[in-house]
Amino acid sequence: MKHLEDIKQRLRDFAATREWDQFHSPKNLSMALIAEAAELVEHFQWLTEEQSANLPPDKHTEVEEELADILIYLIRTADKLDVDLLLAAQRKIEKNERKYPIDKVKGSSKKYTELD
Amino acid sequence: MKHLEDIKQRLRDFAATREWDQFHSPKNLSMALIAEAAELVEHFQWLTEEQSANLPPDKHTEVEEELADILIYLIRTADKLDVDLLLAAQRKIEKNERKYPIDKVKGSSKKYTELD
Amino acid sequence: MKHLEDIKQRLRDFAATREWDQFHSPKNLSMALIAEAAELVEHFQWLTEEQSANLPPDKHTEVEEELADILIYLIRTADKLDVDLLLAAQRKIEKNERKYPIDKVKGSSKKYTELD
Amino acid sequence: MKHLEDIKQRLRDFAATREWDQFHSPKNLSMALIAEAAELVEHFQWLTEEQSANLPPDKHTEVEEELADILIYLIRTADKLDVDLLLAAQRKIEKNERKYPIDKVKGSSKKYTELD
Repeated sequence: MKHLEDIKQRLRDFAATREWDQFHSPKNLSMALIAEAAELVEHFQWLTEEQSANLPPDKHTEVEEELADILIYLIRTADKLDVDLLLAAQRKIEKNERKYPIDKVKGSSKKYTELD
Repeated sequence: MKHLEDIKQRLRDFAATREWDQFHSPKNLSMALIAEAAELVEHFQWLTEEQSANLPPDKHTEVEEELADILIYLIRTADKLDVDLLLAAQRKIEKNERKYPIDKVKGSSKKYTELD
Repeated sequence: MKHLEDIKQRLRDFAATREWDQFHSPKNLSMALIAEAAELVEHFQWLTEEQSANLPPDKHTEVEEELADILIYLIRTADKLDVDLLLAAQRKIEKNERKYPIDKVKGSSKKYTELD
Repeated sequence: MKHLEDIKQRLRDFAATREWDQFHSPKNLSMALIAEAAELVEHFQWLTEEQSANLPPDKHTEVEEELADILIYLIRTADKLDVDLLLAAQRKIEKNERKYPIDKVKGSSKKYTELD
C-alpha cells in the first residue's frame, strides 16, 4: 500500500466485514483518535526532549505502532466526513506559510497571535 | 501534493526556514498533535453521533482544517522518528486483521481483550 | 482524606520519598494528565451516551479509577504551579455565569461565541 | 466554596438552570474534559520543562483557568457517575503506594510493568 487511498479502502473493507460502521460516527472516531494520540504522549511524558528523539529499538517499535493507530483513525474520520486529507493538509500548509512569515517568526515559537 | 512524501518534504522546508526544528522534538510534537486532536473532539462534544456525521458546511470546513492539523503534526513526528507512516499503518492493519477475526467480532465493539 | 489539601500533601510525600519530583515539571504532568483523561475517553468511545450513563459495575469501577488518576495529576500540576484549585474553579464558575446568561443559552449547547 | 462538594452543587445548579443536563452524558463530559486538558498541554508544548515551571504572570493566569476548567468537568463527570472523587483518589494513592514500593522505584520513572 503506497498511498493513503489504498489504506482508506482497506480500512473500509475492514470495518464493513466486521459490521463496525455502526460504531464509526465521526464523534466516536474522534474519541478513538485522541485516545491513540494519548498513547503516543504517554511514551514521552517522563522522557526529556532529547530522550524522545533517541528511543531504544523496542520503544521505537511501540511508538511506530502508536503513529500507525493515529493515522488509521485519522483516515477513517476523514473518510466518514468526505475529507481529502492530502488536499486539506496542502491548503493548511499554504495558510500557515502566509500566517507565519519567515522574517517575523524565525527562531521563535511564539504563536501568530502574539506576533502582531 | 499527491503523496505524504511531498507533504513531509514541504513541512521540513517550512520548519527549516523558520528555524523551528529546535522546538520539534518528538515529545513536543506529540503534545502539539494531541492538542489538535482535542480541537477535533471539541467540535463533536455536544453533538449527537448523527449530528457529527451531518455537519453544516461552515463546521465541515473547520473540521477539515483540524484533520489537516493532525496530519501535519503526525507527519512531522513520524519524520523526526524516521518512521514510514504508510508502512507502519499497513503492518498495523495486518495485525488487526489477525487480532479481530471476522467471525468473532462481527457487529460487536468489544475489544479483543474481552473476546477470549 | 476529606479535603483536596490532604491529598495534595500525601501526593507530595509520595513523590518526595520516591525522588520523583525531578520528573514532575508542569509540562510533564500535563502530559500525564491528558493521558489519564484519554483512558476515560477510551471507556466511552464505542458506547452510546445512554450506555455511558449506565455502566455495568466492573466498568464503573474502572472508570472510577480513571477519574481518580485525573484528579491526582490535576492536584500535582496545580501544586507545582502554586494554584489553589478550589479558588480557581470558583472564579471560573462565576465567570461562566456571566458569560452564559440563563435567558440566552437555556436548552442550547451553542457556545457563547455563537450567541452574539 | 471551600470543598469539592460545594462546587459540585453549584455546577448542578448551573447546568439545571440552563437545561444543559441533556448534554451532560459521561461520554460528552469526558470529551469536554480532555479538550480542556489539551488546552493545558497547548500552553506547555513549545516550552522547556524549566520554562513550564516558571511561567510569566499572564501565562500563569491562563494556565490557572485551564486547571479550573479541568476540575469543573472532572467534578461534573464524577457527579453524573455517582463517584466520590476524594475517596476514589485516596484508594488509588493507596494502590499506588503498594504498586510502587519506595526501594524499587526511587529516582526512576520506569513504570511498574518494567520493574519486575
